[in-house]
Amino acid sequence: MYTLYDYLDSGNGYKIRLMLSQLQVGYRYVERDIMRGETRTNEFLARNPNGRIPVLEIEPGVHLAESNAILWYLAEGSPLAPASRWARAQTLQWMFFEQYSHEPFVATARFIIRHLSADHPRHAEVPRRQEQGRAALAIMDRHLDQHPYFVDDRYGIADIALYAYTHVAEEGGYDLSPYAHVQAWIRRVASLPNYVGLQQRPA
Amino acid sequence: MYTLYDYLDSGNGYKIRLMLSQLQVGYRYVERDIMRGETRTNEFLARNPNGRIPVLEIEPGVHLAESNAILWYLAEGSPLAPASRWARAQTLQWMFFEQYSHEPFVATARFIIRHLSADHPRHAEVPRRQEQGRAALAIMDRHLDQHPYFVDDRYGIADIALYAYTHVAEEGGYDLSPYAHVQAWIRRVASLPNYVGLQQRPA
Repeated sequence: MYTLYDYLDSGNGYKIRLMLSQLQVGYRYVERDIMRGETRTNEFLARNPNGRIPVLEIEPGVHLAESNAILWYLAEGSPLAPASRWARAQTLQWMFFEQYSHEPFVATARFIIRHLSADHPRHAEVPRRQEQGRAALAIMDRHLDQHPYFVDDRYGIADIALYAYTHVAEEGGYDLSPYAHVQAWIRRVASLPNYVGLQQRPA
Repeated sequence: MYTLYDYLDSGNGYKIRLMLSQLQVGYRYVERDIMRGETRTNEFLARNPNGRIPVLEIEPGVHLAESNAILWYLAEGSPLAPASRWARAQTLQWMFFEQYSHEPFVATARFIIRHLSADHPRHAEVPRRQEQGRAALAIMDRHLDQHPYFVDDRYGIADIALYAYTHVAEEGGYDLSPYAHVQAWIRRVASLPNYVGLQQRPA
């Protein structure tokens, strides 16, 4: 049985929880509080030297880090995996877009606002991050104007990767009303079978 | 024939040039000067709405962005592709590590130093970026202490992704002497057949 090392408010961790629920795969859930340094202990660094959640323990002592690599691993052989060479390429294009051009802005603005004290100096970063986050949302919106999902017009791991922080972007001070196609896609994803919410603690 | 839209000094673009050389695949090379806004024109944004090089044109009108997605696409069916589910997972783990925990620090410090004027305010970012870049180099060094390459003890696309900016880290003000295993790996990669250098302009 898989063990997921995670922090409940993390969208990166939520990607894995959402996918495991949709695949109806059971797992053991172990929370590590990133705000209390629990991902910087020797115990945790032995699981992921980069000191970040989520980490999936595949079997005792065998760990996989990086949320999007975990999605790819879990998807293989499932209906959520891209089905052709071109679909695999486009799926990874969107997943790398998510980690480089979306997460550092959409997720980090939310993190600063939700988790750092009001007088923390990192609040000064928020306007610039929001500006870059809006650019990412606009790119997504233009794509979703033509397509119901990101790749091959069917739901897959590129959608999961992008959904995780997009659907809670308002918690990072974003206004999603200019992005009608993003909003419609969020509603489509949230209505899929075996959906779970970000704050829904695994059993 | 592939067309690669690229900027010669880009390590992300160099990943593709190195791989195509090693696979002995010919391609058309089209330079777009990122310092002159040539990736923000309507012509370029139609190829990649995110306005970034490299972009690989697979066939007329069919484009793929994100350097690591391009590596994955090109690798399929070649000896540079990971050969098992677990190797694919580890390869993607290192490639997402590269884009999230390495490139924004190792590459961006180099970019600021090489391409922005001495009085540009972004020089203030360099010390903090270098600190995070050193953390990434230390993680790589510990892995390479035990392994000749990143995945399955053989050269593959995870190595290409990490090599591109690591081997020119000194141009971003990094001292590589504390990372002996990284240095040995750099020498191993540079001695492989059909190697090309970052500044080597394609024919």
